[in-house]
Amino acid sequence: MNHQEILTNYVSAFIQQLINGGVTKAVISPGSRSTPLAYLLEDHPLIDCHVNVDERSAAFYALGMAKASGRPVVLVCTSGTAAANYFPAVVEAHYARVPLLVLTADRPHELREVGAPQAIDQLHLFGRHVKWFADMALPEESPAVLKHVTRTAARAAAKTLEAPMGPVHLNFPFREPLSPILGQWSMDAVPQTISHFKGNKELPDSAAVSLSKKVNEISRGIIIVGPMSNDRGNEAILKFAKASGFPVLADPLSHLRKELSKEDLLIEGYDAFLKGEDAKAKLQPDLIIRFGGMPVSKPLLQFLSPLTEASHWLIDQGTDWRDPLSSVTDYIDSEEVSFVEGLLPFLKEKENQDWTESWKRVNQAAIEQIAQHIQEEKDEGAVVGQLLQALPENSHVVVGNSMPIRDVDTFLTRSASPLTVWANRGANGIDGVVSTALGIAVETKDPVYLLIGDLSMFHDMNGLLVSKQYPVNLHIIVINNNGGGIFSFLPQAQEPKHFETLFGTPPALDFTHAAKLYSLDYQKIESVEGVTAGIQSLHDQQGVTMTEILTNREENVRVHRELWKKVQNAVSGVLS
Amino acid sequence: MNHQEILTNYVSAFIQQLINGGVTKAVISPGSRSTPLAYLLEDHPLIDCHVNVDERSAAFYALGMAKASGRPVVLVCTSGTAAANYFPAVVEAHYARVPLLVLTADRPHELREVGAPQAIDQLHLFGRHVKWFADMALPEESPAVLKHVTRTAARAAAKTLEAPMGPVHLNFPFREPLSPILGQWSMDAVPQTISHFKGNKELPDSAAVSLSKKVNEISRGIIIVGPMSNDRGNEAILKFAKASGFPVLADPLSHLRKELSKEDLLIEGYDAFLKGEDAKAKLQPDLIIRFGGMPVSKPLLQFLSPLTEASHWLIDQGTDWRDPLSSVTDYIDSEEVSFVEGLLPFLKEKENQDWTESWKRVNQAAIEQIAQHIQEEKDEGAVVGQLLQALPENSHVVVGNSMPIRDVDTFLTRSASPLTVWANRGANGIDGVVSTALGIAVETKDPVYLLIGDLSMFHDMNGLLVSKQYPVNLHIIVINNNGGGIFSFLPQAQEPKHFETLFGTPPALDFTHAAKLYSLDYQKIESVEGVTAGIQSLHDQQGVTMTEILTNREENVRVHRELWKKVQNAVSGVLS
Repeated sequence: MNHQEILTNYVSAFIQQLINGGVTKAVISPGSRSTPLAYLLEDHPLIDCHVNVDERSAAFYALGMAKASGRPVVLVCTSGTAAANYFPAVVEAHYARVPLLVLTADRPHELREVGAPQAIDQLHLFGRHVKWFADMALPEESPAVLKHVTRTAARAAAKTLEAPMGPVHLNFPFREPLSPILGQWSMDAVPQTISHFKGNKELPDSAAVSLSKKVNEISRGIIIVGPMSNDRGNEAILKFAKASGFPVLADPLSHLRKELSKEDLLIEGYDAFLKGEDAKAKLQPDLIIRFGGMPVSKPLLQFLSPLTEASHWLIDQGTDWRDPLSSVTDYIDSEEVSFVEGLLPFLKEKENQDWTESWKRVNQAAIEQIAQHIQEEKDEGAVVGQLLQALPENSHVVVGNSMPIRDVDTFLTRSASPLTVWANRGANGIDGVVSTALGIAVETKDPVYLLIGDLSMFHDMNGLLVSKQYPVNLHIIVINNNGGGIFSFLPQAQEPKHFETLFGTPPALDFTHAAKLYSLDYQKIESVEGVTAGIQSLHDQQGVTMTEILTNREENVRVHRELWKKVQNAVSGVLS
Repeated sequence: MNHQEILTNYVSAFIQQLINGGVTKAVISPGSRSTPLAYLLEDHPLIDCHVNVDERSAAFYALGMAKASGRPVVLVCTSGTAAANYFPAVVEAHYARVPLLVLTADRPHELREVGAPQAIDQLHLFGRHVKWFADMALPEESPAVLKHVTRTAARAAAKTLEAPMGPVHLNFPFREPLSPILGQWSMDAVPQTISHFKGNKELPDSAAVSLSKKVNEISRGIIIVGPMSNDRGNEAILKFAKASGFPVLADPLSHLRKELSKEDLLIEGYDAFLKGEDAKAKLQPDLIIRFGGMPVSKPLLQFLSPLTEASHWLIDQGTDWRDPLSSVTDYIDSEEVSFVEGLLPFLKEKENQDWTESWKRVNQAAIEQIAQHIQEEKDEGAVVGQLLQALPENSHVVVGNSMPIRDVDTFLTRSASPLTVWANRGANGIDGVVSTALGIAVETKDPVYLLIGDLSMFHDMNGLLVSKQYPVNLHIIVINNNGGGIFSFLPQAQEPKHFETLFGTPPALDFTHAAKLYSLDYQKIESVEGVTAGIQSLHDQQGVTMTEILTNREENVRVHRELWKKVQNAVSGVLS
């Protein structure tokens, strides 16, 4: 594809998506750098373009249109002070709550801050007076960039209309030559259509009807529940699952895994069995309904990513659209309970249960292999598996990021105790985890178990100081493999030269000393054989304790990989 | 004073100072909230005001004036989108490097973000397109606010002219009624006159001549050197001191205290003797010449603060004007060496040495008391004093904030070893000090001694991990008084109810465990008697070691206060 084709596709995809978002009017001020936007907006049969030379007047003119129509009006200008002339109307739109969508053209990155003509710093140009700012990618042929463009268009248009309505600013860097190809509009240029239902509290009836129709028509649907500690939401989702008949892939942080023994639509072994090609091929859904944050499981994301034909709904409220795969087709801006209550009256029972039965059978095969692994092996997985079985029922478990949360994702099956799992998955850091667990313990007043790696433990060791001041029952279980275990699973681990220095970072710390420093009861478990008894010994202990379990990083990788093979074989047996 | 008088004084002081800063022209757009600025600018005989209704045009008009004159031109407008209309010209001024001084009127704080008319968020309104933004205080009668106003005016005018020239934005909240008193201009309204010499590399000759004239005429001058690790600067300042004959008050972080045995103009006991009223009364200078950052010594600042009749020069380069006392009369924007080289050719030897001799005698009396205290007492001061005597000559000492740096300020006299002292005085935090010391040790490759309190040690204990990876010679000396010792000197310490919980924060940590965790050689010194031998035992040790010295917080306060009394009596003897 040549430069002109790439430019045209990029801008066209953007404009098509604006139209899906309700845009019908654009106010354009003349300029060179904005040529691609100006030409293609003017060229599109569904956009009504007005030209207004003075950008200050143009912006107030668009403001008037948007005020009167209640729809987002697009503003287009070139780079430089042209954009600064929009400022008075942008400020007015911010305080008067008027949906303006400001599109400024900009120099490409190599011409910024080098004294190029009409090149000013346009990032966050309008400061706090717009609801959202995004600097767009340079035009590229890649599907990832086209998805970014359409998603941003959909989100920007939607954002102007969200309460309180207001202005949004997108900045477009363009390289010369700037002329696009005209007269070739077709819906094919748009790689996906994104619907956006403004739920606020109540899902509009029209949306409930069309969405539930789709749920009734489709037999191959799955529900995914990511990290979510809203118990009412979890309950509603279970109701929705029963009504639709779809299996529910429950993230360990969804608080749904403690229902595993009671709810047979829940699937917990997906992280293990979706690593296999057979399962991925035979279990492809036509509809994905996703709640909560991004799931922990990487195999699940790799399963979803290539499913470009499927409808993918995200039911969420918040500022970011949580879709790093760019695979969502319908953003449904709604709280979980009102979404479910909106659809429930229209849902019909599925006659054919084959689809869901396949998921259940595959899941059963996977978790049997996992159970056997826990009994027979000696790696961190077996350690975590035995530990999860040995914890008291209904305990709170705080799980560190990196390997612990991944191992809990795999090994927290229905053979474990029912547990409430917590972790910091907003930004997935290894920092502050000890203090978070202390905070959860002080707030719940229940005994809390913290499962954490040695690096993460080291990072927030200072957090233990408050355990002297505020009495809690916290049992810290450090899986000590002397370093950053997760990196051993990465391709970087094949480069031995700098690996230990930069990634392994073995702290070589003896946590006995840390325990003494803070007067914690301490036990060391040298191998998997001691795990069950060691954990059970904690059940009646008070205060903050530390249990160190020694494991081996290299061994761990090998044995984990053997498990994936066994699961794959068992699943293929079920599916054939 | 009534509202109108306060308002008038405040705005008049601002305008007078603008005139001192070279402002002669203002472009005003009509509006109500900006009435005080508009009326008083128009009223002033030395300001030429132009009225231009459209703020966008007004700003470009002022831009033209400033381009042609090379002097800052003032812009005045009311609150709301009026200010946003300046944006295009502000952006142009930023990139074209034109000195514009934008003054926007604003609602007072209680009318912000509550939907008041024409009230928008004007803080940082022009983002990165101005060189400096400041939100002004509401008009008040207090001298502190008037000093803030005049200093900000001087700095804003100067800032527009500093290379690269460009726009500056000040935002003025005003309460109604908005009319000032007219027709009463007099220079008395200006509490101080601030000169600003734009040094860049070379101090202009005219400045060198007028400044050196003052140095020659005044006999009662002092030089203060704050934290400054620029050795060429320190050397130049010593040359300047010899030529002017003024005593040099050398902060422990100036790197000048290691010259104490060689340079008899250096004064190190001021932190002790300036606590006494006699010394403060008899040693009042007429000229203060200050280099480097803010000195550590609080008694020194309390000595300077009321000297409103003295000339106070600050020779500094940087973004902030380091003058929290608002006592500087002349900001001299110059690098130290070029300042000294500019003045040296014009300086004449002083005939009468009485003034400097008084300083030396008082200093001698104080440091004798300090030496006696070090020999006889058992408090942290004696600990620090003995320690500073026991360190190898020319070592690097990194000093923690809070009490350690203050004790070093007092007890690092000519009886101690010559030492290079380091500390983090940019923001004076107790965090990251261990890591800073490790960084200094790895960079200098010399043995480094770290003198640190227990809270600060705790805060960066994790920093010790790298000591396993990168071999350095660092001897950590923890003064452990179990908590935040400095707070015991504050008035809050008289409120026993919550004091220990909120300020004392005794960590009750046994650092033996921390030393074991990181495999450090460790020794504990139980009292002052063990200090000298303990420190000497470190001289030949390699690697990272930890020495813990136990002290007592309450006892410490009492004994410190006794020392101040003894110094005061000895100094009064000398001065009478």
